[in-house]
Amino acid sequence: MTATTWDRGDLGRVAELIKDIDICMLVTRTDGSMRGRPMSNNGKVEYDGDSWFFSFKDSGLVDQITADPAVALAYIATERGTWVSIEGAAEVVDDDGTKRQLWDDELRQWFRDGPDDDNVVLVKVQADRVHAWAEGEELVFEPGKEVARIAAG
Amino acid sequence: MTATTWDRGDLGRVAELIKDIDICMLVTRTDGSMRGRPMSNNGKVEYDGDSWFFSFKDSGLVDQITADPAVALAYIATERGTWVSIEGAAEVVDDDGTKRQLWDDELRQWFRDGPDDDNVVLVKVQADRVHAWAEGEELVFEPGKEVARIAAG
Repeated sequence: MTATTWDRGDLGRVAELIKDIDICMLVTRTDGSMRGRPMSNNGKVEYDGDSWFFSFKDSGLVDQITADPAVALAYIATERGTWVSIEGAAEVVDDDGTKRQLWDDELRQWFRDGPDDDNVVLVKVQADRVHAWAEGEELVFEPGKEVARIAAG
Repeated sequence: MTATTWDRGDLGRVAELIKDIDICMLVTRTDGSMRGRPMSNNGKVEYDGDSWFFSFKDSGLVDQITADPAVALAYIATERGTWVSIEGAAEVVDDDGTKRQLWDDELRQWFRDGPDDDNVVLVKVQADRVHAWAEGEELVFEPGKEVARIAAG
């Protein structure tokens, strides 16, 4: 996906910005239109450039990323002037060990039968680019590049 | 864009859900990737299926919607269990009268020279579909159709 790797310091800054944002919107594309849905962010896992979400094998989300992996994750915390767009590629990961490892019992409200349900899969979003607006700054993070500071418009 | 028209009652319900959400994320597509950026929602205007935003003529946003008008607007209000995805087509509207009419002086932090700046344009997003999660319900609004209630997953 990405030819170069992320700088750990950069990822730490992104992690700091999003760690308290419980729900993001995951936007996909289908038949020339966009589709968005709220997804629960797993705050237990330190952000390393990959975001992990639980979904159902027969969901529109899984159909859409299988046809077209380009996605955006929208993180919004207007009350503290923070907005983050994580842009990258999504893939389905159907692995029992990883499902159990990333499971959080708060997810049971959406996935009643837990991580061992055969219809439950993981969606992994590997970031290619992170665009953040925070503390009056506008920053673009990309793997293998220096952070770009964009002057206010 | 849409062959049939929106039901006024449906739009009133969508308007109610988003009216207090000052900033949404506008997601576009470019060269096979997604791009998102926070946009100021004009709370003064009653939602009628069209969303209006100010932008710059030479912005990435304007380039992107000119090449591919499909967009999503992500509205997030996790503190009250409300998430809305407005999906539709965006177009640039460069009209002095409309710019002046929709101008709000709070926008001056981003558009210092006001609505008469020749580089300032409007971006209009005409909704084809609104997907809302609110008060424990999941609802899909489409023009000319009954509101679809989706059972919790």
